[in-house]
Amino acid sequence: MSKKNQTHVVDNLWCIEENRFNQDTNKHFEGLFTQGNGYMHVRGSFEEGLRGAAQDEEYMRMPANVTLEQPRHTKSKWGTFIPGIVGKHPLLKEEIINLPYFLGIDLIIADEELNMEASTIREYKRWLDLRDGCLYRSLIWETEQGIDLKLCYKRFVSMEEKHLCLQQVQIEVLSGEGILDIRCGINPEVRTNGFNHFKEVLTEDNNSEYICTKTITDGGNSVLMLSGISASENICWSRLTQNQRIFFSGSRLLKAGDCLEIQKVTSVVTDRDLEEGTLIERGEKYLKYFFKEGWEKIYERHSRAWDSKWLYSDIEITGDDEAQLAIRTYIYHLIRANSENDSRVAICAKGYAGEAYFGHYFWDTEINMLPFFIHTNPQAARNLLMYRYNTLEGARKNALENGYEGAKYAWEASVTGEEQCPCWQYADHEIHITADIIYAMYHYVNSTEDIAFVRNFGVDMMVETARYWVQRVDRNKDGYYELLGVMGPDEYLPITRNNAFTNRMVKFSLEKTADLLQKIKQEDAKGYLEIENRLGLKELEIEKIKEVAEKLILPYDENTDIVPQSEDFESYADVDFNAIWKDRTKPFGNFISQEKNYRSKALKQADVLELMLLYPDDFTREQLTNAYDYYEPITTHDSSLSASVHGIVAAWMGRMPEAEKFLKKVMDIDMSEEKKGAAEGIHIANCGGLWQMIVYGFAGLKSAMWCDEIQLAPHLPDKWTKLEFTLAWHGKRYRITVTKEKHEITELY
Amino acid sequence: MSKKNQTHVVDNLWCIEENRFNQDTNKHFEGLFTQGNGYMHVRGSFEEGLRGAAQDEEYMRMPANVTLEQPRHTKSKWGTFIPGIVGKHPLLKEEIINLPYFLGIDLIIADEELNMEASTIREYKRWLDLRDGCLYRSLIWETEQGIDLKLCYKRFVSMEEKHLCLQQVQIEVLSGEGILDIRCGINPEVRTNGFNHFKEVLTEDNNSEYICTKTITDGGNSVLMLSGISASENICWSRLTQNQRIFFSGSRLLKAGDCLEIQKVTSVVTDRDLEEGTLIERGEKYLKYFFKEGWEKIYERHSRAWDSKWLYSDIEITGDDEAQLAIRTYIYHLIRANSENDSRVAICAKGYAGEAYFGHYFWDTEINMLPFFIHTNPQAARNLLMYRYNTLEGARKNALENGYEGAKYAWEASVTGEEQCPCWQYADHEIHITADIIYAMYHYVNSTEDIAFVRNFGVDMMVETARYWVQRVDRNKDGYYELLGVMGPDEYLPITRNNAFTNRMVKFSLEKTADLLQKIKQEDAKGYLEIENRLGLKELEIEKIKEVAEKLILPYDENTDIVPQSEDFESYADVDFNAIWKDRTKPFGNFISQEKNYRSKALKQADVLELMLLYPDDFTREQLTNAYDYYEPITTHDSSLSASVHGIVAAWMGRMPEAEKFLKKVMDIDMSEEKKGAAEGIHIANCGGLWQMIVYGFAGLKSAMWCDEIQLAPHLPDKWTKLEFTLAWHGKRYRITVTKEKHEITELY
Repeated sequence: MSKKNQTHVVDNLWCIEENRFNQDTNKHFEGLFTQGNGYMHVRGSFEEGLRGAAQDEEYMRMPANVTLEQPRHTKSKWGTFIPGIVGKHPLLKEEIINLPYFLGIDLIIADEELNMEASTIREYKRWLDLRDGCLYRSLIWETEQGIDLKLCYKRFVSMEEKHLCLQQVQIEVLSGEGILDIRCGINPEVRTNGFNHFKEVLTEDNNSEYICTKTITDGGNSVLMLSGISASENICWSRLTQNQRIFFSGSRLLKAGDCLEIQKVTSVVTDRDLEEGTLIERGEKYLKYFFKEGWEKIYERHSRAWDSKWLYSDIEITGDDEAQLAIRTYIYHLIRANSENDSRVAICAKGYAGEAYFGHYFWDTEINMLPFFIHTNPQAARNLLMYRYNTLEGARKNALENGYEGAKYAWEASVTGEEQCPCWQYADHEIHITADIIYAMYHYVNSTEDIAFVRNFGVDMMVETARYWVQRVDRNKDGYYELLGVMGPDEYLPITRNNAFTNRMVKFSLEKTADLLQKIKQEDAKGYLEIENRLGLKELEIEKIKEVAEKLILPYDENTDIVPQSEDFESYADVDFNAIWKDRTKPFGNFISQEKNYRSKALKQADVLELMLLYPDDFTREQLTNAYDYYEPITTHDSSLSASVHGIVAAWMGRMPEAEKFLKKVMDIDMSEEKKGAAEGIHIANCGGLWQMIVYGFAGLKSAMWCDEIQLAPHLPDKWTKLEFTLAWHGKRYRITVTKEKHEITELY
Repeated sequence: MSKKNQTHVVDNLWCIEENRFNQDTNKHFEGLFTQGNGYMHVRGSFEEGLRGAAQDEEYMRMPANVTLEQPRHTKSKWGTFIPGIVGKHPLLKEEIINLPYFLGIDLIIADEELNMEASTIREYKRWLDLRDGCLYRSLIWETEQGIDLKLCYKRFVSMEEKHLCLQQVQIEVLSGEGILDIRCGINPEVRTNGFNHFKEVLTEDNNSEYICTKTITDGGNSVLMLSGISASENICWSRLTQNQRIFFSGSRLLKAGDCLEIQKVTSVVTDRDLEEGTLIERGEKYLKYFFKEGWEKIYERHSRAWDSKWLYSDIEITGDDEAQLAIRTYIYHLIRANSENDSRVAICAKGYAGEAYFGHYFWDTEINMLPFFIHTNPQAARNLLMYRYNTLEGARKNALENGYEGAKYAWEASVTGEEQCPCWQYADHEIHITADIIYAMYHYVNSTEDIAFVRNFGVDMMVETARYWVQRVDRNKDGYYELLGVMGPDEYLPITRNNAFTNRMVKFSLEKTADLLQKIKQEDAKGYLEIENRLGLKELEIEKIKEVAEKLILPYDENTDIVPQSEDFESYADVDFNAIWKDRTKPFGNFISQEKNYRSKALKQADVLELMLLYPDDFTREQLTNAYDYYEPITTHDSSLSASVHGIVAAWMGRMPEAEKFLKKVMDIDMSEEKKGAAEGIHIANCGGLWQMIVYGFAGLKSAMWCDEIQLAPHLPDKWTKLEFTLAWHGKRYRITVTKEKHEITELY
């Protein structure tokens, strides 16, 4: 038995806690308590599920604006995700598949079933320990027959043995007696967004030591789940099936004072794993490993793996426990969601903690999350960029699909890199992502000095995307290049002309490409020849890239000193926000038709401010202030990518009350029990946003993109007395300590 | 036996003919040969169908640009449509339901089945007689066993007894002998766009004189089909079912020289019919009527009904047989498709001759088809406008759905008037339809002097749509009103600013509304009070309507004297048509991505020219010429609404070779066997377009909207020596005769 469990004290700087069960917030906690290790992820659902919350309802989910959608499942949605295991939805394109639920442990005593909604429960507490990703639940269950049981659940998805999930439940009889029935199973009655992606579910029955479910997906993958079980007292287990479910069933008479501990271990392997051996061999291997080593050893290794993650990732805030817990929660999810050993996948928009956004990858990965990895785990950052390199072929197909040569990165990508966004206005027009990726790569390279990455991989991405851009631009009468038909970061204006953010990103990308090619040509004739051969590169192309880079319009209004979001921004209609936005606790988009929204000056999210955040040296302080003062009042922050950007800019300007308001907003997005933001998954970009807000905003770190030395210009929130974190920077690690009075930068090694 | 059939001579000025069976063009002729009577419509499919052309394939048809879609069924698609019988498709919204196929007659002799693809056929001919809408097929079938049969089919959907369809087949044995098996049935194995709208199909079996299929649709309707059968020789019929099919089966030994005639009559009734009696009572009544009266009498009444339609609808062209047949074909479909006695429905975009466009109603009805009805059958025109009045409640819902008061007519409407367009770019932005309807109503009223229509019905539509408009406009800095976020008639620019066509239409609509209200107020205080009460009208509203009408921007470029399609038109990219449009026999849209198309100056169809057609007095001849010369070269005519408009303008300018080129284009749209344009249904708006081209273009009739007296300014095509037609005008009928030398207008009564 785990001693840690018995002696556990909930540390409010390291644990997110739920103190009473509430049907309304259950889904939120399922999302918030998601556990994972990069390889697989499980939502924080109860072992026994919730009565009446069917997980296999089939319906046709329509493409829509996800931000404004009313989610279908109100009480509970299980989630078992393996990045890369995707299937084709008829409307939503390729989506991550919600796999069979292997966490099931049902308890029945004297014919009464544990049911969080109906049972009499007291001293309920559930918490996720962020240090080691262990999820706990403790409660006292008073049955109608007068039997009182104290239950303590613990579970973790091993950070070290990526294929293992360990669960335990301790049952202590406080009073009464009765026969306890236990069912521990695997349940394939799960649908993803109402769709059945399981072509076949096989229950293999050739070994009595475990139960086994093999799922063949419509994406062609095989996923094998094996569960084994052990108990502290002698229980005779039988293996049963019910429809497609399979489970161990056992029972034992319990009397007052009895203690029983059940352990369930599940190994999950797929045909996508980069390992040798058949599924069954590998699945059994991990299971046997558990039974050989035992809970404690597995836990120790898991715990150490988490420690090593936290070593360079943690941010310590003194004076603001709420912010302390929030940043640790967000960092926890960033670490968990990242598959650092598999560059065939990236981090999806919901951090593999829900079905919303279909497991797709957006620009968020590069722009919102990557800086965290660059400065805490450069290898992981590299891996995320490698995902883009690995899906270059898909990007080529996207370009071709749109009638262009070269490569166009998908607005929403999955395993192939081909466009998965089901709504054309985003897929066709949010083209900035293609340049964002090049920007992000340089951010990584400038921070790490990993020049080889550009030479070995980046150059292909750069040349191919540049090829796309030189065809995507239109030349106007004055000989300048324009980008027409563009949606910038602000998704409430679908088709604009010369979006400032997009054009600047493209200009950067083309300049870097032309410079790089020229440099390689000068320095490495052989290398250049290889590139020429590999990519069929022509000298004329480089000239064209240069020309477009030079002559691409960057909109700017001299009269007002305001950078317009797009050249035609002024032509959109002003919005009477007070008249329309009746309830500001709900998204603005719920109060306006898309039609009206699309012709109005109401921003979903930071657009020009995002530009200024990424190119701080391009703009004067006045321009920054002007932009903030102009755009903030017309920005709805309906997107979770918005608040952190505004918070950073507010901090830069020293407007701390505003910065703190945005800090609160950023924290509330997934932390607020009232807002229930994590119900459909974690807003993982906003997690990176909070990290950036603290590091770039409050510590005032100048982006490694634009300087070689660490430069800080801190503006701490009022009650923060100290801020500490570690930065990976040019191959070294630095400890940053910021107080109101001063800041220190200490080299660690 | 029908004598007419035996003696029929195919009149090439009145009959469209198919001289050989060709699998590739079969679907085209199915559409072109569609028969109907306003109440019901059947495509021109073979009685026995085509082998391997399954009609019940289920698949998910996606919302898309219908113009560019590749149709699913290549060989054959049956079509049985009753306007108003619609059901909900999960993606395409409410669509007309393709009902059970009641035309089935299968012939099998000596175990060999008649099969147009596999059988040996000679002397094949099929033709539709436009005078009476009878469809004929005659052929000689040489079986492998050496039996030669001459087959003559005839069928019509009665124009007088709207619930009856009569079919006959004459079988003459030329040589050989064998047992002929005949199967005449009703087949519910039909899906609409891959979707099953049949909730239940019941085969009622309480009478042995007919077969019966009752279909309960997912739209909640009941459709009853009864088929009876008779033969010229004694045949013992048995009634059989096979899955959901039901049929009469009979056989008879035939020898050389034998003649057999089979007649099949089907009555179709629904719970939507405005008649008393149960379905079965009514269904039986019509069937009995047939058996009592017999083929000849029913045919005579049908034929006379058609004669009366043609009396005032025909256009006679001397010197151009191709044009003569084309205009008659197009008029035939306009007459057939119009449900003149049921103002709960209108004319759908494919003229109830195919599943494409889902049976939805567009602006085409008012702008492209209505003029034909105004001048040939004013009652039918009035009825079409009544449909809009009857669906005002749906239009109110559309406005509300978009956040406005008042009424917004759906871009695609069905029985309720609620928006049925599954693609938001059209539904949200092609708002001109709401004003087009008011324009069309005035066109009708100015032509017919039916002022009462405006006072009784129009005023509600006008006030409610005006209410929508005053909220839909945005006021700019200079105090002028704008319409932002608009798609004009040209559907290749989705979201433009101040579309000239739309703004002019709205201005017209608002001016008329303000004028009307003022006039009623002055002339009819009591009537005005009623309107005030009924619509909750406020004096201030009228002021606002006036103000918006006055200050709504009409874009115009003084420097070039060109009316820009929209205020921002110049900002779109120029298109290198030669580089992109590799094969001009296919739509331009097939060669460019939607993304590129949406930011380019490539018009799908007439936009400014359509404006000039509808408001001829607003523009100088120079402006007309400038517009034509500017827009025509950048117009792809991918829409079937485009060529006729260009043809009219070309004729107005006296550019006859160009006008004739467009004439050819307009005729080819559904007449060309090579283009197979009618495969998915009739381009019914283009039918009205040809009528307009002849009447407004070649005869040069000035629109009754803008003048009280008939004014002509003819420009006949080169080979046309005479053009004659009849016009309803201000309550009278006039015969128009145009020759190269002169034109005459003769009052008929």
